Amino acid sequence: MALVVQKYGGSSVADIEKIKFVAKKVVDRKRKGDKLVVVVSAMGKTTDNLISLAKKIIPNPPEKELDLLLSTGEIVSVALLCMAIESYGQQAEGFPGYFAGIKTDTLHTKARIQKIEPSKILEQLKKDKIVVVAGFQGLSPEDSITTLGRGGSDLTAIAITGAIKADICEIYTDVKGVYSADPNRVKNAKLIPIISYDELLEMASSGAKVMQSRAVEFAKKYKIPFVVKSTFEDGEGTMVKEIELKEGAVVSSVSIDENQAKISIFRVPDKPGIAGKIFSALGQKGINVDMIVQNVGRDGFADISFTVNINDMEKTKDIVEKIAKEIGAEKVITDPDICKVSIIGIGMMNQPGVAGKMFNCLANSGINIEMISTSEIKISCVIRKKDGEKALIQLHKEFIENK
Amino acid sequence: MALVVQKYGGSSVADIEKIKFVAKKVVDRKRKGDKLVVVVSAMGKTTDNLISLAKKIIPNPPEKELDLLLSTGEIVSVALLCMAIESYGQQAEGFPGYFAGIKTDTLHTKARIQKIEPSKILEQLKKDKIVVVAGFQGLSPEDSITTLGRGGSDLTAIAITGAIKADICEIYTDVKGVYSADPNRVKNAKLIPIISYDELLEMASSGAKVMQSRAVEFAKKYKIPFVVKSTFEDGEGTMVKEIELKEGAVVSSVSIDENQAKISIFRVPDKPGIAGKIFSALGQKGINVDMIVQNVGRDGFADISFTVNINDMEKTKDIVEKIAKEIGAEKVITDPDICKVSIIGIGMMNQPGVAGKMFNCLANSGINIEMISTSEIKISCVIRKKDGEKALIQLHKEFIENK
Repeated sequence: MALVVQKYGGSSVADIEKIKFVAKKVVDRKRKGDKLVVVVSAMGKTTDNLISLAKKIIPNPPEKELDLLLSTGEIVSVALLCMAIESYGQQAEGFPGYFAGIKTDTLHTKARIQKIEPSKILEQLKKDKIVVVAGFQGLSPEDSITTLGRGGSDLTAIAITGAIKADICEIYTDVKGVYSADPNRVKNAKLIPIISYDELLEMASSGAKVMQSRAVEFAKKYKIPFVVKSTFEDGEGTMVKEIELKEGAVVSSVSIDENQAKISIFRVPDKPGIAGKIFSALGQKGINVDMIVQNVGRDGFADISFTVNINDMEKTKDIVEKIAKEIGAEKVITDPDICKVSIIGIGMMNQPGVAGKMFNCLANSGINIEMISTSEIKISCVIRKKDGEKALIQLHKEFIENK
Repeated sequence: MALVVQKYGGSSVADIEKIKFVAKKVVDRKRKGDKLVVVVSAMGKTTDNLISLAKKIIPNPPEKELDLLLSTGEIVSVALLCMAIESYGQQAEGFPGYFAGIKTDTLHTKARIQKIEPSKILEQLKKDKIVVVAGFQGLSPEDSITTLGRGGSDLTAIAITGAIKADICEIYTDVKGVYSADPNRVKNAKLIPIISYDELLEMASSGAKVMQSRAVEFAKKYKIPFVVKSTFEDGEGTMVKEIELKEGAVVSSVSIDENQAKISIFRVPDKPGIAGKIFSALGQKGINVDMIVQNVGRDGFADISFTVNINDMEKTKDIVEKIAKEIGAEKVITDPDICKVSIIGIGMMNQPGVAGKMFNCLANSGINIEMISTSEIKISCVIRKKDGEKALIQLHKEFIENK
C-alpha cells in the first residue's frame, strides 16, 4: 500500500468523458490498495476563457480579483471529479486549494507557497476517502485567494507530496513522459526513462514545454521524486529524481525555442556599469533576458547582443533605445527571426568535445551560429529561425540516435 | 450617509456590459456618500449550465459536491464586479460567501443560515471599500461549502442587512417592483408601492415569481425592510415591510399558478387517521401539498382532492395508489390540466363579501370553480388550465382596476 499524489492537467480533464476516464483510473488504483490525493487543473481552456472575460472588463485586470476569478476553474474540476469518483462507488472529499491548507505569500497571480498544513487532507485519507484538491491556488495571510502562476498545479502536487510524505508523485499529462526532443517535430524522439531535476529545468528554459519550472525547483530542493506519464496511454513514463553524476553521461535531450528575439546594441562605450544599467532597467520592467553576448573591440567600444521572449521585443527596444541614447551607443537593432537550439545532459561539461561536436554538426548542415551560451549541463546556440527545424533533427541524429 | 445592502440577481449581471452598468451604478451611489455591501448572483444561466454539467457525470449528483460546483458561479460574478468597480476608480473587496462569515447548517443545496459573523465585512467597510459578496452560499460547521437553495442570494442580502444593521436592503431585479399581477400577462397591472411581508409570501406561494420565500420569511422574522426595484430602469420600486392592518384594506394583487396538478382519491373509507397517513407519506418523500379538499358523503366514504407541483404528479400518484389499495379506496385520478388563481390582500377576511365577489366574477366569466382554499389574506380557486388567462384578467379588472 502506497500513499500516492496524482496530478491531472487541464487536457486530462478537458471534458466530461475525460473526467469520467480519470475517475475510473483513480478508483481502480484505490481498489488496488493505495491511498490517493488527486490534484486537478481547470478543464481545458477554462483559465484562458476566464482571463479573456476579465480583459473585457478592463485590459489589465487587478491581480487579486483575477486570482479570485481564476480559482473557480479548478474548483469546478474538483467538484466534477468527486462526483465521478462517487458514481464509481468510492468516497471522495473535494478541497479548494485554500481549504487544503496551502498557505502562500500575497504575490497575487504568482504566489509562492509558504507552507502546507496537511491536517485536513490527512484526516480525510484516514477516513479512507480519495482526496481531490484544486491545483494552482492557495490562501494568503490576509485570507485572500492566490494563484501560483501558470502550470501551478504541478507545484501544488509536488508540494503536497512533500507535506504528507507521500511515496510518489505522478504528474499525468497528454504525453507519455519526457522525450529526447519534441516528438511532434523529431520522429525518432525517444522517451527518457530517468532524468535529473537539473536536466528537466534546463529543458524547460530551452523551450521544451514539459512542466512548470518552479515545480521542478521545488521538487529538487526538497528531493521529492516524481513521474511524468500519460493519462490516456499506458507506460512507465519518465522518473525525475536526483541523479549522481556518472562518468560518460551524455546528451539526454535536444530542444528548440522559437519564441526568442535578439536585441543588439552597437558601439557601446566600454565603460564599467553600462551592461548593469541596461539589464537592471530590463529587470525592473519584468523582462527576462536569456542569452547575453558581449564583444569588446580594440577601439574601446563593445557590441552587446541578448535574447528576450519575442513578446517582450518591442517593450525591450523602447527601454534599450532610451539608454543607448544616454550612453552614446550607435544603434539598436531587433531581430525576431532567430531561434535557440540546445543540447542538454548532465556531466556534459566533463566530456571534452561535446561543444565542438555540436558546432560541427550545425556547420556541416550549413547552419551559421550567431550566439553561444553554455552551462554545466547545456549548450545553446542562436541560429536563424528558418534553420531551426533542420538543426533540431540533425542534433537529435548526432547526439541521441547515433550514440 | 446610509449603510446600504444591494443585491443584483443573475439577469442584472448576465454579461460584461451589464456588470459594467451595475458597477457604474454602485460607484455613483458610493460617491453620493453611502457605504455599500453588494450581493451578487451567478451570471445569467451559469447555475443551470453547471447543474447540467454535473448531470452529465451522474443524473443525481451528490449534493455536497454540487454545492462546491455551484458556488463557483457567484464567485465569478464577485471577481468581475470588483474589477469593474475598480476600473471606475473605487476600491472594492470581494468575498466568497464562506469568507463573508455566512455560517450555515449542513443541509447541502438548501442550507439554512445559522449565523453571520460580519466582522470581515465591517472591517472592509471601515476601510471605505465597496464590499462585494457572493450570494447563495455559506460554510457548514464542517468547513464544506453550502448553498442556500434557488434564489438564495436574496436571503444572503437580507441576512447581511440584519447582521450589519444596514439602513436598507435593495433587491435589484429585471422588473420595476412588485405588481398587482404579472405585467407580461395583465397589461393594466399596477406597481404596488408598499406591500407587507405576508402578502409577498402569499404571492410567492400563489405562483408569482418575485422573491425566494425564505428570504421574505427571514426579513419578516427580523423585521428587515427592503425595496424591490429595477436594475436598469429608474423608479421607486416596491417597499416591503411590516404593515399594520388597516380598515378597508383591499386586494393588492392577483396571481396565477399553472404548475399545479390535482390528485383525487375517490371513496376513501371515512375513518380517523387516513388523511394523516396519506399526507405524512407524501411529506416523507419531500412532496409539498398545496390545497386540500375533503368531502364526506353520507355513506361513510369521502372523496379527497389535493394539489401538488406538476413535477411531483407521477411520484405522488405512485405513493397514493399504494395507500389507496391498503385502505380500500376506489381509485386515484391525476389531473394536470388545472391551474390556481388567487387574490391577495391584508385584512381581506375582515371585509365581508370579498370571497363572494371573487366567485361571482369567475362565474360571470363562465369559469367553473373546482376547489377553494382561503387564508387570512388570500383566496385561491382551482379552475381549468385553459380558463386561467381569462380568470386572471377578469379578477384583476374586478379587484384592482375597478376599485
